[in-house]
Amino acid sequence: MSEYLPGLAGVPATQSNISDIDGEQGILAYRGYRIEELAKQSSFEETVLLLLDGRLPTDTELNEFKQQLVDNRRLKFHTRGMMKNLPPTGHPMDMLQTVVASLGMYNSDNSCLFDATSCNDINYIHNTTVKIMAHVASIVAMWEHIRNGYDHVDARDDLSYAENFLYMFTGKEPDPLLARIMDVCLILHAEHTINASTFATLVNASTLASPYSVVAASIGALSGPLHGGANQKVLEMLEEIGTPEKAEEYVDKRLANKEVIWGMGHREYKTKDPRATILQGLVNQFMDTRGGDINPMFEVAKAVEEVCEDRLAKKGVYANVDFYSGILYSEMGIPADQFTTIFAVSRTAGWLAHWREQLGDNRIFRPTQVYTGEPIRKYVPSNKR
Amino acid sequence: MSEYLPGLAGVPATQSNISDIDGEQGILAYRGYRIEELAKQSSFEETVLLLLDGRLPTDTELNEFKQQLVDNRRLKFHTRGMMKNLPPTGHPMDMLQTVVASLGMYNSDNSCLFDATSCNDINYIHNTTVKIMAHVASIVAMWEHIRNGYDHVDARDDLSYAENFLYMFTGKEPDPLLARIMDVCLILHAEHTINASTFATLVNASTLASPYSVVAASIGALSGPLHGGANQKVLEMLEEIGTPEKAEEYVDKRLANKEVIWGMGHREYKTKDPRATILQGLVNQFMDTRGGDINPMFEVAKAVEEVCEDRLAKKGVYANVDFYSGILYSEMGIPADQFTTIFAVSRTAGWLAHWREQLGDNRIFRPTQVYTGEPIRKYVPSNKR
Repeated sequence: MSEYLPGLAGVPATQSNISDIDGEQGILAYRGYRIEELAKQSSFEETVLLLLDGRLPTDTELNEFKQQLVDNRRLKFHTRGMMKNLPPTGHPMDMLQTVVASLGMYNSDNSCLFDATSCNDINYIHNTTVKIMAHVASIVAMWEHIRNGYDHVDARDDLSYAENFLYMFTGKEPDPLLARIMDVCLILHAEHTINASTFATLVNASTLASPYSVVAASIGALSGPLHGGANQKVLEMLEEIGTPEKAEEYVDKRLANKEVIWGMGHREYKTKDPRATILQGLVNQFMDTRGGDINPMFEVAKAVEEVCEDRLAKKGVYANVDFYSGILYSEMGIPADQFTTIFAVSRTAGWLAHWREQLGDNRIFRPTQVYTGEPIRKYVPSNKR
Repeated sequence: MSEYLPGLAGVPATQSNISDIDGEQGILAYRGYRIEELAKQSSFEETVLLLLDGRLPTDTELNEFKQQLVDNRRLKFHTRGMMKNLPPTGHPMDMLQTVVASLGMYNSDNSCLFDATSCNDINYIHNTTVKIMAHVASIVAMWEHIRNGYDHVDARDDLSYAENFLYMFTGKEPDPLLARIMDVCLILHAEHTINASTFATLVNASTLASPYSVVAASIGALSGPLHGGANQKVLEMLEEIGTPEKAEEYVDKRLANKEVIWGMGHREYKTKDPRATILQGLVNQFMDTRGGDINPMFEVAKAVEEVCEDRLAKKGVYANVDFYSGILYSEMGIPADQFTTIFAVSRTAGWLAHWREQLGDNRIFRPTQVYTGEPIRKYVPSNKR
C-alpha cells in the first residue's frame, strides 16, 4: 500500500488533458492556450467549447453552440415555483446546489451512461452540457429577483452569455466595458486543474451518476469557505480598511499577528497568479475610463496590493484571482453573497469537461483507508455498560 | 510524485477509526463491533450513535438520542411545498439530493466550521447530525405520497426509527417482523469504509462545506448505477427468471455469456459478504413465519443463490448484501425505485460519522493530475482555423 498523504497532496488522481498550471512561471493554460490569450481574444462561449471539445471551434460551430445556449436559458415554471418555496435568507450556493440537483428529475434518462459501451454518447453529453451551462446562469440571476420577492427578468436572445447574465441579474442592459469584464471573469474562473470541487466531479462522475447530480456535488464542494468565497472576504476586508491611507497599517498589523490577507497567495503559484494580472489590467482600464466616478474600494485595493507586494513578494506571495474580482462584481451591482455563485457558473464549464473526460476512461473511485480504530471487541449489553 | 493508480485503487485517502473490513475472513465491524452482533443485539438508533461517538451509549444517552430523532421528524411546509413542485416522475435519489441540499438554506450558520479552532464544536455537529438523520427518512417517506398526489402521513412519536419510517411510507402500522428486518437492513447499510459516496463526503467536508451540502453530494455519488442500485437490479432479475425451476438455466446462460449475475460478488470480500448471511437468515425466518403466503420471488432467489454457490463459490464469488434486500423491501410495500433512497437513509449515518472525523483532522483534498494534453500553443483567430 502506498504512503498516506493527507488531502492526497501530490498524489495523482487522474490523467487529464484539459488544463495545466506551471506554478513556477505563473502559467495557466486551457487545452494548451494561455489564459492571457483567451482573456484577450476569446469569449466565454468559445472558451467553454474549447474546454469541452479540446480544440478551438470554427465560426459555424461556435455560432451553433451560442444558439444552443440561448435556446436553453429558460427555466420551467415548476423550477421557479420550487425556488419560491426556498427561504430568501439561505445562501445562494445552497440554492444553486438545490436547483441544479432538481433538474436531474426532469432528465432522468441517463441510461446511455449505465452502459459502458455507450458511455461516450457524445450527443447526450453535449446536449446535457449545454442545458446545464445555460441553466446555471439563469438560476443565479433569477434567484436574485425571487429572493427579493420580485418576478424574474426574462432572458434576451440578442445578448451574449455574459451580457445576458448581467441583464437578467440586474434588469438593466449592462455597461459594455463591465460586460466585457464579466466575460473575462467567466473565462478566468472556468477551469483550474484538480481542485477540491473538480475532484468532487471526478468522484461522483465515476459512479455514473447523472451530470446534474455531479455538478450539484461540485457546487457543494465549492461552497466550502476553504475553497470558494475568498473574493467575498476581500471585499469585506477592503471595506474594513476604508481608505487607501489606512492600507499600510492594516496590512502590517495583520502580518504581525500572522493573520491572513485575503486575496493574497495561492498554493499553486510561486509567482503572481496570471489571472490576477489580467484582472488588474481590467481594473486599471475601468478606472481610467470612469475617471473619479468609481467606488473608493478600487483605490483601497490598489494601495493594499502595493503594500503586500513590498512585504510579501519576496516570499512568493502575490495577489490571486480573488483579489480584484469582488470589487468588479460589486461595481456590476452584484451583492457579495452571490460572488461564489458566479464562480460556480463559470467553473461548471470545467466540471463538465472533466465529467466528459472521466466517462471516456472511467474507473470508480475507491481508495483505501488506514484503519486506526478499535480491534474486534465483544458487544456489551446496555445494562453492563 | 507517486504512481498514478486509476480510481485511487489501493491508495490510502484517510485515516479512520469508524469501520473496518476483513475481506479474506468476511468480517465487517463498526467501531470494532462485528456487524453480526449489532444486527442481533443493537438497534439502528444505537448503531448510529455508536458510529458517531465511537462507543456504545448508556441507556440514558440512547433514550435522549431517540427522543431527539423523534423531535426532528417533521418537515417544514416550505420544504413540502418545494417537493410538490418537483416532477413526480423524477428519480427519488435526485429528489433526495435536492431536498437535503435545500435544508442547508434554513441552516446557513455553520460559521463554527469556518473557524479552525472551533471546528470540533460538538454541539453543532451532534445537533445537525440528528436533524439530517431524522429528516432523510421523513423526506423519502413523504415523497412516496407527494409524488402520487396525496398528502403525506405524519410521523408517530411512539415508533422507532425503522417502524416510523415504514409507517410514514406505507401509511400502515408495520408488521413487527418486517419492521425488525427494516431495522437490521438500516444497521447493515449504515457504513462500509471508504466507498465512492463516503469518499465524496470526505472531499466535500474538507472544504468545510455545510453538512447538508456534504450529504447531498454523497447522495449524488450513491445515485450512480455503479454504486447504489444493485438491489433494484436483483429484483428485476428475479422477476425475469419468474420461477425457481428456471434459475439454473438462467444463471448458466448468463455465465456462459460472461454477463453479470446481479447481487453476486463484492470487490471487498473474497468470501461471503457477512451482511448477505444475516439477510439470508432473516429471509428464512420470514419464510418460516409466513408459510406459503409469500412472494414467489423468495423461492426464485433461494434457487438462484444455490446455483450460484455451486458455480461461483470456488472463484470467491458469493451473494452480497444487495441480493436479498430488494425482495425484503418489496415485501414491505416499497417500490423498486425507492430501494436506493433507503440505502441513502441508512448510509447517511456513516457519511455523517466521516464528516465529523474529517473535521477533527482536516486538510482540503487537492490531489494532482498527470497532464496528458497539448503543450503551450498559440491562439489561432477564428478566420484562420
